Amino acid sequence: MLSARLVAPPFESGSVWLVGAGPGDPGLLTLHALRALERADVILHDALVSEEILSLAPRARLESVGKRAEGRRTPQLRINQRLIALAREGHRVVRLKGGDPLVFGRGGEEALALAAAGIPFRIVPGISAGIGGTALAGIPLTHRTLARSVTFATGRDAAGDLTDLDRAVSGDVLVLYMAGRRLSAIAARLIAAGRDPADAVALISDATRADQKVTLTTLRDAADVPPSAAPTLVVIGPVVALRAHLAPLLRTEPMTVIPLHHEARSAG
Amino acid sequence: MLSARLVAPPFESGSVWLVGAGPGDPGLLTLHALRALERADVILHDALVSEEILSLAPRARLESVGKRAEGRRTPQLRINQRLIALAREGHRVVRLKGGDPLVFGRGGEEALALAAAGIPFRIVPGISAGIGGTALAGIPLTHRTLARSVTFATGRDAAGDLTDLDRAVSGDVLVLYMAGRRLSAIAARLIAAGRDPADAVALISDATRADQKVTLTTLRDAADVPPSAAPTLVVIGPVVALRAHLAPLLRTEPMTVIPLHHEARSAG
Repeated sequence: MLSARLVAPPFESGSVWLVGAGPGDPGLLTLHALRALERADVILHDALVSEEILSLAPRARLESVGKRAEGRRTPQLRINQRLIALAREGHRVVRLKGGDPLVFGRGGEEALALAAAGIPFRIVPGISAGIGGTALAGIPLTHRTLARSVTFATGRDAAGDLTDLDRAVSGDVLVLYMAGRRLSAIAARLIAAGRDPADAVALISDATRADQKVTLTTLRDAADVPPSAAPTLVVIGPVVALRAHLAPLLRTEPMTVIPLHHEARSAG
Repeated sequence: MLSARLVAPPFESGSVWLVGAGPGDPGLLTLHALRALERADVILHDALVSEEILSLAPRARLESVGKRAEGRRTPQLRINQRLIALAREGHRVVRLKGGDPLVFGRGGEEALALAAAGIPFRIVPGISAGIGGTALAGIPLTHRTLARSVTFATGRDAAGDLTDLDRAVSGDVLVLYMAGRRLSAIAARLIAAGRDPADAVALISDATRADQKVTLTTLRDAADVPPSAAPTLVVIGPVVALRAHLAPLLRTEPMTVIPLHHEARSAG
């Protein structure tokens, strides 16, 4: 039945691939990402990348550089230095990040550090949560008559001076990353900036995973939603209402990863 | 070396999967997309989806519904009806679209038609050209100090009353799909709306393919760029300047597809 063979570009020794792991479902990895995991010598990964996805890297040494249990995070400068050092030692290095490496992922800073150090690198785009998580929640980001532009911003910045958010509010659909804990303040700010308090709001936690949760509210009532510790995406705009029509027939089961040789990593 | 096995969710007979094929490079297909191509009975595809990617569907009947040589396009209503009819005949149907199905892809309309007809469906997000094409051009969409929000819109709408574009201009980074032919009018409009004429602009054609072309200009000089017939993405904002630092060491070779049994389709 196989009628074609896929040939991946070389993964040079002494180079770094900045790889997006997608929002959670292993089936949303790209073919480039899977091949990179299979060929990597060392993988520096965020805490958001699941064990399931990491199990697809049979031979790599894994280094976690995300938030650890105690809530500390490896400083960005240290991550950049580590990537450069590992590449100079001749390894095939993967920097594995949830979602897409360049959409609020600080992959741009890593790429600039690698380029300044003369290290060859590749960027493997990933499905960003703002696109993949909304799709699996039954919320089309664009719709000819409802929404012809979409703006991505972060809830984190919104906690600062909110300047960016004020400017972003004008887009038809607003997608806010990492906004779960600050929804109340964000909603108040958007209403003050002129947005309709009746605007539909969806909160999507653990996007695209089997335990994905979607909560619907409005800007006016957003303050009543209990803050969530899970990574939460917030979508604001008329397209949120389409979920009611789509969700009943929408299939969302993720791909699953079944470990075959659990001892392989320690043996390798 | 294989330490894990990936198990895909069922592709039910009589269901439709709306699948994003990504921007061009077959390596940017997701694992879900590849499995869907392998299992599909019928594939309705856009003209933008390459022969290379279609060759990964060994057993499916292919129906082109995109722009044909003479420039005609199957009306959206006919596509919706065809998807419903094929599903009702019991086929596993893939609707294959360039990029992501819900980002300016009218996949939302197809999903609503399927839901209204009671047809089970799945949405398989794809790498949108705005994310994948910019990454492989060495342009990070977000950067902590340069760009903390990004707005996606279409050049097509911009040719209408331009209302959407006026509202979208406020975002830090503006990504315009299908904007190559109208760049001159768009640039004039953005400058009139208050954007700095010195703002950096990148035009990306045939994004992520081996023959990808990137042209740099400014809003002021955009009118001098010859209009292109190729699908062109326009990026406006300070992050465009990062390309000069990243491009020299950035690797961008696509994955290639080598046909093994060219006679398989006609035989099957």
